[in-house]
Amino acid sequence: MCAIVGVFNIPNASKVAYYALFAMQHRGQEATGISSSDGTRIYTKKRRGLVTDVYAHEGTFEYLKGSMAVGHNRYSTAGSSSVLDAQPISAKYKLGEISVVHNGNLTNKDEVREQLIDEGAIFQSYMDTENIIHLIARSKKDSLQDRIVEAVHQIKGAYCLLIQSRKKMFAIRDRYGVRPFSLGKFKNGGYIIASETCSFDLVGAEFVRDIRPGEMIILEKGEEPKSIQLYEAEPRPCAFEYIYFARPDSVIDGKNVYEKRVEMGRRLAIEAPVEADIVLPVPDSGIAAALGYSEQSGIPFENAIVRNHYVGRTFIEPIQEMRDLKVKLKLSPIRKIIEGKRVIIIDDSLVRGTTSKQIVKMLKNAGATEVHFKLASPPIKHPCRYGIDTPSYEELISANMSEDGIRDLIGADSLSFLSLDGLVESLGRETKYSLVSFDGNYFIK
Amino acid sequence: MCAIVGVFNIPNASKVAYYALFAMQHRGQEATGISSSDGTRIYTKKRRGLVTDVYAHEGTFEYLKGSMAVGHNRYSTAGSSSVLDAQPISAKYKLGEISVVHNGNLTNKDEVREQLIDEGAIFQSYMDTENIIHLIARSKKDSLQDRIVEAVHQIKGAYCLLIQSRKKMFAIRDRYGVRPFSLGKFKNGGYIIASETCSFDLVGAEFVRDIRPGEMIILEKGEEPKSIQLYEAEPRPCAFEYIYFARPDSVIDGKNVYEKRVEMGRRLAIEAPVEADIVLPVPDSGIAAALGYSEQSGIPFENAIVRNHYVGRTFIEPIQEMRDLKVKLKLSPIRKIIEGKRVIIIDDSLVRGTTSKQIVKMLKNAGATEVHFKLASPPIKHPCRYGIDTPSYEELISANMSEDGIRDLIGADSLSFLSLDGLVESLGRETKYSLVSFDGNYFIK
Amino acid sequence: MCAIVGVFNIPNASKVAYYALFAMQHRGQEATGISSSDGTRIYTKKRRGLVTDVYAHEGTFEYLKGSMAVGHNRYSTAGSSSVLDAQPISAKYKLGEISVVHNGNLTNKDEVREQLIDEGAIFQSYMDTENIIHLIARSKKDSLQDRIVEAVHQIKGAYCLLIQSRKKMFAIRDRYGVRPFSLGKFKNGGYIIASETCSFDLVGAEFVRDIRPGEMIILEKGEEPKSIQLYEAEPRPCAFEYIYFARPDSVIDGKNVYEKRVEMGRRLAIEAPVEADIVLPVPDSGIAAALGYSEQSGIPFENAIVRNHYVGRTFIEPIQEMRDLKVKLKLSPIRKIIEGKRVIIIDDSLVRGTTSKQIVKMLKNAGATEVHFKLASPPIKHPCRYGIDTPSYEELISANMSEDGIRDLIGADSLSFLSLDGLVESLGRETKYSLVSFDGNYFIK
Amino acid sequence: MCAIVGVFNIPNASKVAYYALFAMQHRGQEATGISSSDGTRIYTKKRRGLVTDVYAHEGTFEYLKGSMAVGHNRYSTAGSSSVLDAQPISAKYKLGEISVVHNGNLTNKDEVREQLIDEGAIFQSYMDTENIIHLIARSKKDSLQDRIVEAVHQIKGAYCLLIQSRKKMFAIRDRYGVRPFSLGKFKNGGYIIASETCSFDLVGAEFVRDIRPGEMIILEKGEEPKSIQLYEAEPRPCAFEYIYFARPDSVIDGKNVYEKRVEMGRRLAIEAPVEADIVLPVPDSGIAAALGYSEQSGIPFENAIVRNHYVGRTFIEPIQEMRDLKVKLKLSPIRKIIEGKRVIIIDDSLVRGTTSKQIVKMLKNAGATEVHFKLASPPIKHPCRYGIDTPSYEELISANMSEDGIRDLIGADSLSFLSLDGLVESLGRETKYSLVSFDGNYFIK
Repeated sequence: MCAIVGVFNIPNASKVAYYALFAMQHRGQEATGISSSDGTRIYTKKRRGLVTDVYAHEGTFEYLKGSMAVGHNRYSTAGSSSVLDAQPISAKYKLGEISVVHNGNLTNKDEVREQLIDEGAIFQSYMDTENIIHLIARSKKDSLQDRIVEAVHQIKGAYCLLIQSRKKMFAIRDRYGVRPFSLGKFKNGGYIIASETCSFDLVGAEFVRDIRPGEMIILEKGEEPKSIQLYEAEPRPCAFEYIYFARPDSVIDGKNVYEKRVEMGRRLAIEAPVEADIVLPVPDSGIAAALGYSEQSGIPFENAIVRNHYVGRTFIEPIQEMRDLKVKLKLSPIRKIIEGKRVIIIDDSLVRGTTSKQIVKMLKNAGATEVHFKLASPPIKHPCRYGIDTPSYEELISANMSEDGIRDLIGADSLSFLSLDGLVESLGRETKYSLVSFDGNYFIK
Repeated sequence: MCAIVGVFNIPNASKVAYYALFAMQHRGQEATGISSSDGTRIYTKKRRGLVTDVYAHEGTFEYLKGSMAVGHNRYSTAGSSSVLDAQPISAKYKLGEISVVHNGNLTNKDEVREQLIDEGAIFQSYMDTENIIHLIARSKKDSLQDRIVEAVHQIKGAYCLLIQSRKKMFAIRDRYGVRPFSLGKFKNGGYIIASETCSFDLVGAEFVRDIRPGEMIILEKGEEPKSIQLYEAEPRPCAFEYIYFARPDSVIDGKNVYEKRVEMGRRLAIEAPVEADIVLPVPDSGIAAALGYSEQSGIPFENAIVRNHYVGRTFIEPIQEMRDLKVKLKLSPIRKIIEGKRVIIIDDSLVRGTTSKQIVKMLKNAGATEVHFKLASPPIKHPCRYGIDTPSYEELISANMSEDGIRDLIGADSLSFLSLDGLVESLGRETKYSLVSFDGNYFIK
Repeated sequence: MCAIVGVFNIPNASKVAYYALFAMQHRGQEATGISSSDGTRIYTKKRRGLVTDVYAHEGTFEYLKGSMAVGHNRYSTAGSSSVLDAQPISAKYKLGEISVVHNGNLTNKDEVREQLIDEGAIFQSYMDTENIIHLIARSKKDSLQDRIVEAVHQIKGAYCLLIQSRKKMFAIRDRYGVRPFSLGKFKNGGYIIASETCSFDLVGAEFVRDIRPGEMIILEKGEEPKSIQLYEAEPRPCAFEYIYFARPDSVIDGKNVYEKRVEMGRRLAIEAPVEADIVLPVPDSGIAAALGYSEQSGIPFENAIVRNHYVGRTFIEPIQEMRDLKVKLKLSPIRKIIEGKRVIIIDDSLVRGTTSKQIVKMLKNAGATEVHFKLASPPIKHPCRYGIDTPSYEELISANMSEDGIRDLIGADSLSFLSLDGLVESLGRETKYSLVSFDGNYFIK
Repeated sequence: MCAIVGVFNIPNASKVAYYALFAMQHRGQEATGISSSDGTRIYTKKRRGLVTDVYAHEGTFEYLKGSMAVGHNRYSTAGSSSVLDAQPISAKYKLGEISVVHNGNLTNKDEVREQLIDEGAIFQSYMDTENIIHLIARSKKDSLQDRIVEAVHQIKGAYCLLIQSRKKMFAIRDRYGVRPFSLGKFKNGGYIIASETCSFDLVGAEFVRDIRPGEMIILEKGEEPKSIQLYEAEPRPCAFEYIYFARPDSVIDGKNVYEKRVEMGRRLAIEAPVEADIVLPVPDSGIAAALGYSEQSGIPFENAIVRNHYVGRTFIEPIQEMRDLKVKLKLSPIRKIIEGKRVIIIDDSLVRGTTSKQIVKMLKNAGATEVHFKLASPPIKHPCRYGIDTPSYEELISANMSEDGIRDLIGADSLSFLSLDGLVESLGRETKYSLVSFDGNYFIK
């Protein structure tokens, strides 16, 4: 998972991109980068670390000059920790220079890479983004736009792309619109295109519309944004963005994430009622669904697990006498609220089950007489191949155990998931969704 | 405001103190320090920075050896940024070595200091803690315990003290018990004494009881804790600990902080009802009170302001085009929830009014038709002199403006505070409280 | 200017490369990198900073595993400060993976790059090293060795190359042997190939022989090093390596650098005698030549300028009242030795003249009655294009002023350079040298 | 060993102190601190680290405001690594505020400390400097000057002190003048007092005279420096300052350090001649003596050991196959010069013998046929108690072995020391010296 942003025709474009990336930090904490252009040259800075660290060095925004910029936050993925795997990727090629950022996953990347290598291309990273640059560079077309179109027709998968030359910017979203991608506008006439609309609010841009599935938008100075429909749209927005990934204040394809989470909580209350005294969220991810569950069921919501926000990266290993400390460092139950109560605890989803087990234990230790664990999404039985870094089949607990088995393992008195139909009902039946993690229907080959 | 902790008779005492300080990081972020003793020597490490940073250096806990330790988190106070103003203060004196940590404020510190200086004492910091060490060192009594008693009788104010020699530990709480101070026990027989009980939960200690106002507890190896009542108790716990300062999962003098906050919200709903569509908290400080308000009033609670937890210390100055960015970086409203609604927004207290103004503006920009700002505590009209770092009269908006004036200044449609009586009612009438910030009754001279 | 090293068939190859790079830190302080191979994969770490910093992170050498490695130190060059411009460059291509390091300068790099770009190649850096990788990747030959030979025949210039695949290592030196490049051997049978022999001494390798101009050496496990003469050798070793760049304990093409510097000092004394009381070196670069001058002239050598080795990178800007501080921070004259004396001051070469001016002033202030500035090399009138980062014509003082003019500008009583003939005489007439900085004879087109 | 500096009546005094401390970095690398005064308050910054690091933080010199300052560099001493052991020590006392820096060692510090503690004083560090502050604070005299005089009469040992109040500065040197201490003057009328004159040269101050043994100098605005002779002078300057500790460009009590080192080398050549081909220094400490030896003996001086100045603090542990690497990382012999030669190697002094052994081995490995190790000082048989951090009797090789034994241990063909008489002859017979390390005559009880 990643965040991308493009900022066009606004002074200090790199600084605006910086704020947008800050607002989208939740989509990727491993590395971040920005490429700006002042019309004559492309300037790039990328490094491992958080947005607030990477650009903190004095002179950064003086270096990243110009009125256009693209930026990227990289999600931590196993096995790749090199700065070479940070984006944007910038390259000099026949028509000049380009900088590319990408959110998603190309399903035919290995075939494309193999063929490119056969033709003599070299790859300096493991990122599929590098495929795209090569396809553009190797095209025989005379214009960058034509080359991009040709390149895009050779790739498959879920992707949102921003490609910046010294003077233009191109945004492309795959035909299914799996990942979110929206267009915003500044009062002075400049534009912003980003993974999430929460970034627009921070930088003072107005939401215009979503990039359409299959659409390419071209930004050029002195002209209105041009739109070309490269493919017929077959919308399949990713359900997981609503369930967990996106920020609650973002609006994806017309639907507010927070509202949808509350709705999932409501449906969960209808589908899986249980007698209990209080409803608790796993903070912060379960708050909205817990509020919906509470509202629907009439069982009072209590914010009775305190989250410690000082947890840093350099934590000293817990000492021997204090096992299970990892979750306790982050989450602390309020005994006075929990003691002697039948508790419903709500989280957005269940992946490996290790944290859930510790939470159940923590609640029981705090005096809960019953703990009912409820998930505001269906069991995750398949790895996502369209851009979310879910673990493999071996690690997905729902791919390997029955619900009863999981319930026993985590020590809860009951365990319920939202049904697949309930999920679709919550999100709205007027469109199809990418539900691969739940149904294993890999619709992009 | 600060946090202190003492850990006695447990292996790796400094590491246990470290986790306790981590759990109490909210009470002080400027500096932190730990002194341990292995029975033959006292070892000290203190530095500016967060708990997770200061002790991160390899070898720290090997250096801080021994089965007893005292620790301190220092709150940022204007005008003092030297490492010399960090605690513990350790000193060699006639009977050996001691290490002292202190939470509170001595009201007669200037007189005591002046007299000590007259007698030839030197001061290396601006901390009143240094007074205490000098009083102990200058006593002619033969035992440390007698010296401490003599010293404590010369100081006035609100204080919780932990004094560690190479082999013993002493805990003293002022006769009013203004600041919280509790005793916990480990399964193996060791003890912990700390500002807040939330630290017990993390390190696996059981709450035993609060240190009584006016009490001194003495910990010595191989013996049960001894208790001496130095003064008759005249309890006056600080209301502000319940309102804002303490962590919601802590229990202070028998009362859970979260519950009391919910109760304040309920009373606020009774005292200051208003027709509205939704109740929002200012996250995270207003959440409990907003839940209480919602419950009492029946107006739905919505967690409709997203808090960005990636805000760091090295933030680049917002650029010209984006004023008011400071609050926006931290708080983001969910437009879909707010738009077209009459909004009640709840915070714990109002100090200067600057943030409130930006929040009202943010909510109106997000489409709120009315914004009713409600505070779950009375107007702050006087600076605290008993250990909380409130600003001076000039900066306290309620000391300088009427409620109507404040309402107009922050741009709200209405503004209400919890009444002083309502506050006391919420906290419980069975005891008196320290309410100096609200009523100016400085009961400790 | 840069340093390169290849280490083959020795356990912990990356750590051996690290020590070799440490010994060659003088050839490049801006960035450093190492690629190792364990036979199945290539591992790379590169970053801006000194050798002792870049690899200091725990786990570095565990990551850089395998029994072969190539490494590089990068010299600071204007206009390029990106980590992307650090070496080695590693790339995946048709036959697998390779890692390349390079010391020198390709004179036809722009033409080659243009043609590669025409064919659809992309470039992610400004380094000519990237050309070489592309040429190898685009070759249609079946073996890496054949591809390298084909690639090398397309490049011109001064170069020493090390190319590592997962299992083999290739070393190539241009036909003129402009830059130094030597082969060493470990007792256990492993090999090292490096820019300077001083690196052999540190890691305990024995010097075997220099790589011959035009030679390619192939290292493969279980086999003796193979040698292929790609071009007929036309030796032209760079005079500047002897004058200034190489470390005094290195032996380049059979000649010890220190001895040659002493010899240049001796010739300078013959060519440019002057009556004086003492001979001083500019430390540390002028020491050997000053010793030679003293020996030949009989005028006593005095080490009367103290060099401060604590000068760091984060120096606070000197305050207003103390201009000229920059040289004074680094160099301090010993007044007692200099006062009332006629002084000969010796440096290795004169580039811009700014430091020399400050040194003359410093010596006069210290009481020198006469200052005779003598350079142990001829006037630099042309920029090097073969790998040394000399400034452009505009900045080279000898390209723009007469010797008399320079003498007046720096305020010396006399100024002398070693003659071009004297330089060649000192180095030995049995071979030709690359003297482009002095005679402008750009023999590689 | 330490460096101290006081700067009086000059703008940006703290920045001037900073440059002076930079020039005296060789006297102490562990910690550094500066206290400045603007007439109303004293400002202090001190921390572990090099001068160029500790003050590098933006805003340092804005904070350290005022036209007077005292500063200190701390030498690394075993067993004390706390920031609390850094100087200056600043304290508030009856007459206001003072800041103290100290170079030397008080021989009666334990007795004084014990008595102070008996009277109720507390000590926050292990430094004898704290004694002095206490003595001043406890004096009943009405003026700071009288208090200082009274305090100084209670201490014994070798000391140079600088004491700064908000408006005055006092400099005191013990009656023996063991440590160097000199007065300099700025053109604008301000003054500098420092451990070494090399600091004057850097900041543009003129040497005025040495502080006399037993003298107190008082600096006050608008007045000429006042001098009071507290004790009759009985000069005993430390021979080790000339031998090793001071910088060669410093002048101590009228004698230039470099000249004296050359002279010691000359005497060594007279006392301990040997047939050999070349004279080498151990760089950089042995250079001056080696030049003197060469001059006297007529045997050519060769700078044939290269010192690597990139050795940093974070060095990776040498790997198994490369033992003895520690010295090799720092020193590299030039084989071409050494091979087949009879070598005289000169160092300033011999402490533990471990490095010498590795140097002899290194020279033999480089082909030396004979290695004659010569020391330009007598055998060190006693620990210094007057301020130099020599090791204990157990570690001093000359306290435990005969010269023949040492020669065999380090593997040299011969070993010679300068005689005690030769040392005195070199330094000048017109005064007595502190020679405790050599003769064990601890003249200060």
